[in-house]
Amino acid sequence: MNPSAIRRVSVLGTGVIGTSIALALRRAGVHVGLYDLDTRVVAEAELMGAGIALHPDDPPADVVVIATPPSTVVGVLRDAQDCGLGAVYTDVASTKARIFAEAEVAGCDFTTYIPGHPMAGRELSGPGAAHANLFTGRPWALCPHPVTPPGAVHMVAELVEMCGGEAKVIAPDAHDRVVAAVSHAPHLVSAALAARFAAADETMLSLVGKGLQDVTRIATGAPELWCDILQQNAGPVAAVLDAVVRDLTEAAYALRNSGRAGGGALADLLTRGNHGREHIVDRVHAKGRAHRPEGDELAELARARV
Amino acid sequence: MNPSAIRRVSVLGTGVIGTSIALALRRAGVHVGLYDLDTRVVAEAELMGAGIALHPDDPPADVVVIATPPSTVVGVLRDAQDCGLGAVYTDVASTKARIFAEAEVAGCDFTTYIPGHPMAGRELSGPGAAHANLFTGRPWALCPHPVTPPGAVHMVAELVEMCGGEAKVIAPDAHDRVVAAVSHAPHLVSAALAARFAAADETMLSLVGKGLQDVTRIATGAPELWCDILQQNAGPVAAVLDAVVRDLTEAAYALRNSGRAGGGALADLLTRGNHGREHIVDRVHAKGRAHRPEGDELAELARARV
Repeated sequence: MNPSAIRRVSVLGTGVIGTSIALALRRAGVHVGLYDLDTRVVAEAELMGAGIALHPDDPPADVVVIATPPSTVVGVLRDAQDCGLGAVYTDVASTKARIFAEAEVAGCDFTTYIPGHPMAGRELSGPGAAHANLFTGRPWALCPHPVTPPGAVHMVAELVEMCGGEAKVIAPDAHDRVVAAVSHAPHLVSAALAARFAAADETMLSLVGKGLQDVTRIATGAPELWCDILQQNAGPVAAVLDAVVRDLTEAAYALRNSGRAGGGALADLLTRGNHGREHIVDRVHAKGRAHRPEGDELAELARARV
Repeated sequence: MNPSAIRRVSVLGTGVIGTSIALALRRAGVHVGLYDLDTRVVAEAELMGAGIALHPDDPPADVVVIATPPSTVVGVLRDAQDCGLGAVYTDVASTKARIFAEAEVAGCDFTTYIPGHPMAGRELSGPGAAHANLFTGRPWALCPHPVTPPGAVHMVAELVEMCGGEAKVIAPDAHDRVVAAVSHAPHLVSAALAARFAAADETMLSLVGKGLQDVTRIATGAPELWCDILQQNAGPVAAVLDAVVRDLTEAAYALRNSGRAGGGALADLLTRGNHGREHIVDRVHAKGRAHRPEGDELAELARARV
């Protein structure tokens, strides 16, 4: 399969992620059709050069990308498959297990649907915040169903590569547990730190430095969208929050009792933090050596998953 | 007072902060004498061009910078003042109230000692991680005692400016409360997030992205040094951790009970996070408009503090 297998893509939902995908595909020479319930954001995406509004007479796309909020994905997917909008379908929602299960219940066709999730986002929303480089070098999870033919998985992996992303095949449950730890729980923890400054006075802000800027960078994003995301992944996110709360409660106790055994608990948390950070940094540095999954590997992984 | 009032500075403690100050001052043409209990790190700082090793026959410095761990500052200060090492003294410890109180008890001379704290740090430690630009555009707290003459405060403010920092006069107690919120508690929270990856496997690391990198960036630094810092500011740090724990406990409860009133608590936390982040970003953007405190302002603030 060569890159030219993807000539026409339809993007349903032209928010920041959908429009960024559209821009990246346009740059790769793909014809992109755009659709959104809000025709104004389609017009905005068109003006940015992300493609042209989808027309009822357009031929089926090679890939249909569903870039709508998590709770709407299954409904949009079923409608799109019913209309025969494309050969292969994927989505970009940041939770996968619930969508996977709901799509099974709704009778969606998993031979043409490969759930996906690009691990990239912007603090801003809407097509105006979109960028063709948003996915460059970023992981992009694919959670194919056991019944999905390798060729269909390959088609979506090709789209990921066209967008500059790195396809990672992973089971939906594992995806959700991992994303709870790398993205969803950190979002809430970052918000809990930033919330300390919701009513900050001049003195409180006088010593703001780079550290606080970094740890609160992800404390943005529309609360409604984030509530939707978090509630779709409630169990795994709550489990990570429990672990963070346990560590911080012990740290606060240790600080108030530092004359006794407090130092040990503090040092233990800081040391585990050091180790975790090393793993995260090592991973990022290793990315230069990462390779795109080969066809056999993808097919094998897709079959191996239960 | 003009910049040339500072011609000779002694830096006691040539770790990352002390050596960075030395490098910035050398760039400004100041003669810098270096001292550390560990003569190897002095030699390393010398090789980097940070100055030359302090000699017993050297004349007194215009400013002596004490860049040793927080719990050692008062002892080093008293010895330095007893020896008449300089005209004016400051330190760089990230806690101030306890050092302030201990220095009063130890009979240190506050007419020549202006407690200080540059709001900058690196993930790495030791002179090898030092950089002359470390303080550029960063706030640098000064906590002068009511008895300190404005001229002495001005001398240290001049040193801050030579290093590229922005002097902020603040009372020691307020400093510690603010730093607990902007730096110390975020350090522990960042560590608690990073700690989730201390034993991470390949799957857990496969989807690591920029968000996690940012929120865990400050989860580094030597645990021993950080235990010292955190225990010096135990009360204010524990209070911030309590507030974060309260928010995250409510969020976990809301996630597990999203059918009921859960959504409200989640949205409330995310909204407060949005507002806090806006204040932090606004503050950073406003920095271009910040001004260096004028002489009268500094003197007035120093007198106004109780």
